[in-house]
Amino acid sequence: MRILIINPNTSDEMTKGIDLTAKKYARKDTEIISVSNRKGPASIESNYETALSLEGVLGWVLQANREKYDAVILACYGDPGLEASREISEIPVYGIGETSMHFAAMLGRKFSVITDLPREIPWVKRDVTRFGLNAKFASARAPGIAVLELQSSFDTTLKGLIKESKKAIEEDGAEVICLGCAGMAGYDEAVEKATGVPVLDGVVCAVKFAEAMYDYGKSISRIFAYQKPEPKPLLNIPPEFEVK
Amino acid sequence: MRILIINPNTSDEMTKGIDLTAKKYARKDTEIISVSNRKGPASIESNYETALSLEGVLGWVLQANREKYDAVILACYGDPGLEASREISEIPVYGIGETSMHFAAMLGRKFSVITDLPREIPWVKRDVTRFGLNAKFASARAPGIAVLELQSSFDTTLKGLIKESKKAIEEDGAEVICLGCAGMAGYDEAVEKATGVPVLDGVVCAVKFAEAMYDYGKSISRIFAYQKPEPKPLLNIPPEFEVK
Amino acid sequence: MRILIINPNTSDEMTKGIDLTAKKYARKDTEIISVSNRKGPASIESNYETALSLEGVLGWVLQANREKYDAVILACYGDPGLEASREISEIPVYGIGETSMHFAAMLGRKFSVITDLPREIPWVKRDVTRFGLNAKFASARAPGIAVLELQSSFDTTLKGLIKESKKAIEEDGAEVICLGCAGMAGYDEAVEKATGVPVLDGVVCAVKFAEAMYDYGKSISRIFAYQKPEPKPLLNIPPEFEVK
Amino acid sequence: MRILIINPNTSDEMTKGIDLTAKKYARKDTEIISVSNRKGPASIESNYETALSLEGVLGWVLQANREKYDAVILACYGDPGLEASREISEIPVYGIGETSMHFAAMLGRKFSVITDLPREIPWVKRDVTRFGLNAKFASARAPGIAVLELQSSFDTTLKGLIKESKKAIEEDGAEVICLGCAGMAGYDEAVEKATGVPVLDGVVCAVKFAEAMYDYGKSISRIFAYQKPEPKPLLNIPPEFEVK
Amino acid sequence: MRILIINPNTSDEMTKGIDLTAKKYARKDTEIISVSNRKGPASIESNYETALSLEGVLGWVLQANREKYDAVILACYGDPGLEASREISEIPVYGIGETSMHFAAMLGRKFSVITDLPREIPWVKRDVTRFGLNAKFASARAPGIAVLELQSSFDTTLKGLIKESKKAIEEDGAEVICLGCAGMAGYDEAVEKATGVPVLDGVVCAVKFAEAMYDYGKSISRIFAYQKPEPKPLLNIPPEFEVK
Amino acid sequence: MRILIINPNTSDEMTKGIDLTAKKYARKDTEIISVSNRKGPASIESNYETALSLEGVLGWVLQANREKYDAVILACYGDPGLEASREISEIPVYGIGETSMHFAAMLGRKFSVITDLPREIPWVKRDVTRFGLNAKFASARAPGIAVLELQSSFDTTLKGLIKESKKAIEEDGAEVICLGCAGMAGYDEAVEKATGVPVLDGVVCAVKFAEAMYDYGKSISRIFAYQKPEPKPLLNIPPEFEVK
Repeated sequence: MRILIINPNTSDEMTKGIDLTAKKYARKDTEIISVSNRKGPASIESNYETALSLEGVLGWVLQANREKYDAVILACYGDPGLEASREISEIPVYGIGETSMHFAAMLGRKFSVITDLPREIPWVKRDVTRFGLNAKFASARAPGIAVLELQSSFDTTLKGLIKESKKAIEEDGAEVICLGCAGMAGYDEAVEKATGVPVLDGVVCAVKFAEAMYDYGKSISRIFAYQKPEPKPLLNIPPEFEVK
Repeated sequence: MRILIINPNTSDEMTKGIDLTAKKYARKDTEIISVSNRKGPASIESNYETALSLEGVLGWVLQANREKYDAVILACYGDPGLEASREISEIPVYGIGETSMHFAAMLGRKFSVITDLPREIPWVKRDVTRFGLNAKFASARAPGIAVLELQSSFDTTLKGLIKESKKAIEEDGAEVICLGCAGMAGYDEAVEKATGVPVLDGVVCAVKFAEAMYDYGKSISRIFAYQKPEPKPLLNIPPEFEVK
Repeated sequence: MRILIINPNTSDEMTKGIDLTAKKYARKDTEIISVSNRKGPASIESNYETALSLEGVLGWVLQANREKYDAVILACYGDPGLEASREISEIPVYGIGETSMHFAAMLGRKFSVITDLPREIPWVKRDVTRFGLNAKFASARAPGIAVLELQSSFDTTLKGLIKESKKAIEEDGAEVICLGCAGMAGYDEAVEKATGVPVLDGVVCAVKFAEAMYDYGKSISRIFAYQKPEPKPLLNIPPEFEVK
Repeated sequence: MRILIINPNTSDEMTKGIDLTAKKYARKDTEIISVSNRKGPASIESNYETALSLEGVLGWVLQANREKYDAVILACYGDPGLEASREISEIPVYGIGETSMHFAAMLGRKFSVITDLPREIPWVKRDVTRFGLNAKFASARAPGIAVLELQSSFDTTLKGLIKESKKAIEEDGAEVICLGCAGMAGYDEAVEKATGVPVLDGVVCAVKFAEAMYDYGKSISRIFAYQKPEPKPLLNIPPEFEVK
Repeated sequence: MRILIINPNTSDEMTKGIDLTAKKYARKDTEIISVSNRKGPASIESNYETALSLEGVLGWVLQANREKYDAVILACYGDPGLEASREISEIPVYGIGETSMHFAAMLGRKFSVITDLPREIPWVKRDVTRFGLNAKFASARAPGIAVLELQSSFDTTLKGLIKESKKAIEEDGAEVICLGCAGMAGYDEAVEKATGVPVLDGVVCAVKFAEAMYDYGKSISRIFAYQKPEPKPLLNIPPEFEVK
Repeated sequence: MRILIINPNTSDEMTKGIDLTAKKYARKDTEIISVSNRKGPASIESNYETALSLEGVLGWVLQANREKYDAVILACYGDPGLEASREISEIPVYGIGETSMHFAAMLGRKFSVITDLPREIPWVKRDVTRFGLNAKFASARAPGIAVLELQSSFDTTLKGLIKESKKAIEEDGAEVICLGCAGMAGYDEAVEKATGVPVLDGVVCAVKFAEAMYDYGKSISRIFAYQKPEPKPLLNIPPEFEVK
């Protein structure tokens, strides 16, 4: 199968990290193509930046449909535009936040999400509700490292992730850890080794779920919430965005 | 005070209806300026259309800040970009969905929202959760009239709204009705007369709340969830969107 | 419009403080009349004292109806008799607890309530549930100052309110603070200045909501939960309490 | 042990029915004394009437303490003044609503409450939340018979109770039925026979719980929510209400 | 009445403690017979051990039915096999966990459960949900003493129970304490004395509830969740387990 | 990888159907071995039968560990013994109920479960809570066909499943359907074709999740809820059940 992984931010370096991680765990017959957003902010740490990333994300989703990919993965933990993407996509669109949280929910009684900055904690909580997982949620914690700095010092980031993961385990009762940023690619193994609990990278989870659903022949339901929008005039929006 | 009302869709006719309604109930010393989105779909009935409206909405919010308005109102019931707007706005941004649902919650034990099309019902439910009001929510119902057709036949629309409102009251226990679309401007009185319960227009609610908070000198909290985003590179985004 | 503000306790000094605050923020064409309870405890810090205040509160509500006020405000944070008042009132009755909590919910993602004594914390929590706002609630905290001592030392009270507000913000994630007692009139500005988040006085919120609803022509729904009681014999109750 | 059963309304006939039922199931060494309220409405079907009943209820609770009863039961399904009573009582105060709902929760997976009039349905739902039992609640239903008419035609009332109970079982999934009014005394057996599920009379439940707790030497906790109120001036309230 | 108390573990010493406690608070006309499990682990501190205890528990429940006891009590705080037992029992089966938690919910606004080992804390939380009592639950705490060591040093155990109970009260807001293990028989009075709040032993609660329901002629509902299983082949299961 | 699929009931015919379905969707390098329970009821439709199946289930789980399988799947929709199995297993144990419900939650906004008999509906609801998915749950419905009759007439069963699925979609808002019994193997495609929404077979979901987690090197967390039990005496239990 062919999966298009969209990095909703414009950082090519982060796209490379995502691509590497995805390919490491993908099956041999899975082809991974990873792309950066062509429009929007260099990183996404707020609702504002999410909003500015959406046109680019949706453009890629539409292109993936035209180019007949088998699945699309949105590789930003806030799953920007997930619902919108599903409405206009014939192929399944998976988010790394939604997938990794549900996977975590199946690997332990409670999971925590380690995000980048404290300002993203309310955001994670909103998404736990969005994905219907409050009953399985232990906590969200943040080492206070910005998205684009996650890869600048492996040691600092690793130390921060381990510290917050241990607090999540000991103080909040987490039994599984989700690394809450696509920029944390490559840290899962080391954090797992240090904490002794399953530590999930969202990109890997989404790739594995895409493969699983492809094998089973399943896609996203489009009967009610994710119905195709009606065709209607679009002002100052490129023509490829028109719904037919 | 001066309020900028942003119609997140591009329909000028709808903007006129919103403007008329807002001015009808605004205080004499409140100046209302209503504008249509300059980019995006003609109406918003899906997550996809919401996403495409956001750049235009945020552009207007930033302009309202530069032009020193006292408040901004987003006049689409899904409150598109509400959280994003708040992050980059020094002046308060209010949504007609959030405001009218909280007002409804204060006027009765349970409220229902009458939206346009059945496909928007999951959307309303998501927003009830987003605004933290599940405990006060009776139901969402839809007469099956698209946003842009709401004003084409007053009688048909009124009949549809009354029918669904009565079902909400009799079958779901609603005690207050929210008209769940800015395109329903002008219907509140007739529906109230027919049903005997308070019927709220979101635009009016938001104007009155903006006035109330202006008098009291209060604005949106920006200490945690709505912090200002960090400045960072924006690719293919107009320069006025840069955070300073 | 004419608003009757009922102080459910019998302390005239507190009534004066409430009156001052209400008038400070009321519009010029709003007439505020504030009265003390004529029956009941000097302050209300328990369910027992609430119960003893109710006959007096309801007596004033009935009188406000006879004297054709436009709205009634119950100026005690526990909103004593709110539901009972609404059942027998043709004019809208607003509570300072309900109104300020819903207003707080619209100004930030999470709010906390600062009450007087620790014993009132369970009480606040019950009311958060009563008003359907658990999803927006951060915490209740108490500086341990009794209602009637709140105004005896401005500095001590202010210090206590700031300390607990800061804890609510830093430890509980509050983004908005509600001053949870009518006796805290006059402290909102100083606490807001010290904490940097919106701080709401319930009396002001209720006055502004009463004005807003008056402008919009709305009142409390009386179709289901707040139906008028049936006339029936009352033993040892003054005749003005009879429902006709 | 000696139990004072307080009928919060002033109807002596209803008090007799309550007394009969209580005595039928009380143990031989349990002395039941049942009294009517000396102040308030003839029946309680609204928040307003609840409020007017409270002074009388609390007066009896205080008297029961002075007369050294072993327990007090409030025999109105809305448990009027339950929390207030507990604050000022050295002896345990039990409500028939709270007790029967918890008992029902132990006898089946889901219970329904059959109340008198449709207007009381929101009231029952509020109490289910008040007692923390939403997860065990199937529904509230009402045959539309006023409190004081429940005993006027045994056949009509029985028919109504059976009809609503069957609907609760078949349509709402109830496995246990609570008769939601002290005026329904004497109907439990016949409704149980007709429906095949446990049908609980609140008065009996409260008597049995009072006996059980008496045997075990337990009473209501008074450490936090039900602390004794502080002594303070009471205006126009009889002196026996003063807290010492 | 005759009650069979089943100790789901195989420790006869613990059965003796349970029996003593039950008899101490049972009424004179209540006959208590306590038995140990004849199959399974010496103590139950995990889901695994629960599973291994079930055949023995159900065997005793079936025998109690054949021997026409009036009620069965499962004397392990996790109420192992409660739902299964109810399906195949004509006589009521009560659990000490379910009963004591509901009793605690009636004696205070919030209760905590003190269990044995930290590993049982998630287990207690699961049961609070199982019994529908999340809204009344303050916390679960554990002194870290294994079931079979609870009676080896009265002082150590008492100290541990008091310490955790005090934390539950002071830090978690508990107003009632449940001793969360049948092996804690005999500690309730001393813990209550030290903490000043009601402290409940589950065995006593279940005995008192069994007596109460016996007096009232009520049993477990078997209309929906607890229907009798259909007869069907059982492989390698003793014949007395066959449903007829 | 090698997966042991345990059919918790003793019906070999059902085991064959499970095996066929699992092999149909398993990857080429996945080896599936399916076994029937060696002890317990012929089918599991009650808590009682669940209890009787557990020793056999756990015996197989222990054997799978000794024989170094890579994963175990419990192929009964109630996931009997899932938590207990995880406590004593070094290899991951997955349940078809838990996995398919989480997969369904990712493929649509709301899912319904079609079970066998109405008596299992409360059971499904309990499991939705057990897996923390209430927010994603639309309904449980049952065609009224017993487990062992599901395969006796393909047409009757298919008709029943389609009818209930359509009701779930149209009346309850389901967007995804879970076939809630391992005995429904082979019906997913036909029901999906008839309804137009994703229809999930639990066995397939669990196989695909086992493969995904195997690829990613993840297993069940054993840090808190699923800790290994302590070694302790077991009475009348075969020695292989001893924890070392």
